[in-house]
Amino acid sequence: MVKKKIPFTHKEIENIIKSYSTPFHIYDEKEMVDNTKRLKEAFSWCEGFKEYFAVKATPNPCILKILKNQGFGADCSSLPELVMAERCGIVGENIMFTSNNTPTEEYRKALEMGAIINIDDISHIKILDKIGMPDLICLRYNPGKLRSGNDFIGKPEEAKFGMTKEQLIESYNILKEKGVKRFGIHTMIATQVLDPSYFINTAQMLFDLVLEISLKCDISFEFINIGGGIGIPYDPNEEAIDINFIGSGIRKLYEKFLLKNENKPLKIYMEFGRMITGPYGYLVSKVIHTKNIYKKYIGIDACMANLMRVGMYGLYHHITISGKEHMPLEEIYDITGSLCENNDKFAIDRKLPKIEIGDIVVIHDTGAHGHAMGFNYNGKLRSAELLLRADGTVLQIRRAETIEDYFSTLNYDILNIL
Amino acid sequence: MVKKKIPFTHKEIENIIKSYSTPFHIYDEKEMVDNTKRLKEAFSWCEGFKEYFAVKATPNPCILKILKNQGFGADCSSLPELVMAERCGIVGENIMFTSNNTPTEEYRKALEMGAIINIDDISHIKILDKIGMPDLICLRYNPGKLRSGNDFIGKPEEAKFGMTKEQLIESYNILKEKGVKRFGIHTMIATQVLDPSYFINTAQMLFDLVLEISLKCDISFEFINIGGGIGIPYDPNEEAIDINFIGSGIRKLYEKFLLKNENKPLKIYMEFGRMITGPYGYLVSKVIHTKNIYKKYIGIDACMANLMRVGMYGLYHHITISGKEHMPLEEIYDITGSLCENNDKFAIDRKLPKIEIGDIVVIHDTGAHGHAMGFNYNGKLRSAELLLRADGTVLQIRRAETIEDYFSTLNYDILNIL
Repeated sequence: MVKKKIPFTHKEIENIIKSYSTPFHIYDEKEMVDNTKRLKEAFSWCEGFKEYFAVKATPNPCILKILKNQGFGADCSSLPELVMAERCGIVGENIMFTSNNTPTEEYRKALEMGAIINIDDISHIKILDKIGMPDLICLRYNPGKLRSGNDFIGKPEEAKFGMTKEQLIESYNILKEKGVKRFGIHTMIATQVLDPSYFINTAQMLFDLVLEISLKCDISFEFINIGGGIGIPYDPNEEAIDINFIGSGIRKLYEKFLLKNENKPLKIYMEFGRMITGPYGYLVSKVIHTKNIYKKYIGIDACMANLMRVGMYGLYHHITISGKEHMPLEEIYDITGSLCENNDKFAIDRKLPKIEIGDIVVIHDTGAHGHAMGFNYNGKLRSAELLLRADGTVLQIRRAETIEDYFSTLNYDILNIL
Repeated sequence: MVKKKIPFTHKEIENIIKSYSTPFHIYDEKEMVDNTKRLKEAFSWCEGFKEYFAVKATPNPCILKILKNQGFGADCSSLPELVMAERCGIVGENIMFTSNNTPTEEYRKALEMGAIINIDDISHIKILDKIGMPDLICLRYNPGKLRSGNDFIGKPEEAKFGMTKEQLIESYNILKEKGVKRFGIHTMIATQVLDPSYFINTAQMLFDLVLEISLKCDISFEFINIGGGIGIPYDPNEEAIDINFIGSGIRKLYEKFLLKNENKPLKIYMEFGRMITGPYGYLVSKVIHTKNIYKKYIGIDACMANLMRVGMYGLYHHITISGKEHMPLEEIYDITGSLCENNDKFAIDRKLPKIEIGDIVVIHDTGAHGHAMGFNYNGKLRSAELLLRADGTVLQIRRAETIEDYFSTLNYDILNIL
């Protein structure tokens, strides 16, 4: 059971709304940074441990910069993400380029930046061979039926990512022949996982593979990359994952691994996104309508363009009505946006205090895969992103879209020829 | 059973790709216009019949202009859609403003444009009373348990849209008192419906309501708006709807209605989107990778940022491999994009001819809710839109997004203060 709190008093959020109109996402810098420290602490026993933040989760340069200041790298999987990282000063082996179905130009950019290239498929070796083979290569493993995946990502044997073990071995042999000197191995099988033993099992799987492949291919590994996938408790009834449990669990396995690996050390990398920023973002919106028909609806000024997870996947996000935290949950509401789709709802049949027009609705856990997934369907515009700093001041780290942004790829001048 | 054809030869699409790089959506102007004519013909018996194209489906000014040239209006439900219609010269009662949870500023713009305002909730009357009550008002009806809806939109009694019958009657009485002279009634209960009788039943429901409410409120109605919802056969095993069957079915009901309504005529309006443009759009993409692991994957240069319906909702879109139409369907593939999500697939276990790198993959029926629903998740950019004109020439009606577009709401200068 998690206690869901918001990082501002009612007075404070009212003041923020005076300067920045709703809706917006606001990220709590202090809590986010404290969390990065907990993660680093849990793996402080491992020399060379590094978290590559999954840029996809929150592709905002200020967030990347804050995480860079904590020693994090960036896990990129597209050209725009590579360019964003570069413009934040994150380059070289501080970039993990974990992509799939990769266009050649994206490999070119990653090479130019000196990024660690994580190859998704054996067939891509030929592309790198043509455009430039780096010293260091990581390969992505898909364990198939050996692991179970979960509802969010599907079964590994039906996932488009990674290679079979046979392909891994063939690939390392080819790469070695082509002069590659440094090796890594990666996997990423599930997402939004709340069972800590899952990650310990993944580390075990990779340690075993390193031992087996080192021997078979006569290469030595520099790192394992256990991917991402740590979930967060969106629902207060869920339990937050204990990162120390994962850290000490992997440590035990690592010590055994070292003995078997002739004490040759191995770095541990990860690519978490959601657990780094997710709990520290809040979508703040105002109530603009109340409606009573066959059910009671609360209409807010945010819509699924600002947060897709509920409408798209039917997932739970906790909601706090600012200033009404201590009032009885005496009403049952659907909380809706204004998009012309019936799935544009932030909550269905949610018990909440009595809500009035003007109330401030705070939707929790929007710090990852929130703003990032927004679309412009129905002409809806994506919101601003704000940073709540440790001293209580607010910095706008992305402006809201305007109608002219929405029109920016159009050319009205050609209308007269139609 | 529908025969799925593409509107260009292999040579022609190869030539188009020489000028416009993949991926792109391309819309077949001639077929689209022919379809508008079939719709108008099916309702030619009804004086004042008008289709208001649901802008949400394909919010491109050139598409709106082509439809305007055929006498269609625009169904808008947001401020950017209103402004787009205005910039296409669609104003006054050629606009149906069918929104929900409507911000006051959007009502203001609709009033300023002289649009027909379709009120979603009884509580909104107060807003219009404050900012300016128009002469003509339409109200949206939600029949609740009297109708069944479908999987796409949910049950009417669980939908956020419209009012109960009691609220309708109360609203018309209030509006009449406030000096409103002209009235319409609207409903929209389901979407992607392939059963033509559904629309005939909807018209019957509205005719009955008009008779009942005319009497109860002593007002006369100018139009009914039967909403949208005509589906298209995405799967060749589905049957296309017979628009003439709907036209003549509604005509019979209309003739009976006229007798009961003292021969006072009623206009019939509709707000179709999908059936107007859906079948006439194609997402054209190139094969950039093939991958064999536990399954066979074909990687193309489009991704779910260009078409969300498959990845997001698991829906079917037909696929043609250009130039391989007559080859045997001897392989089973997943067709994937490069987004770092396992649901970024355009087809799963699809029987197709043997595919090679460089093949041109044409995804059918992307003319509605295709480009419109695209997002920028994972730094993916939305594609261009092209118009295939009747004379075989191609007009670019939207340019592809660039990385600078993706960065346009960001300010990298503030990075140095973090």
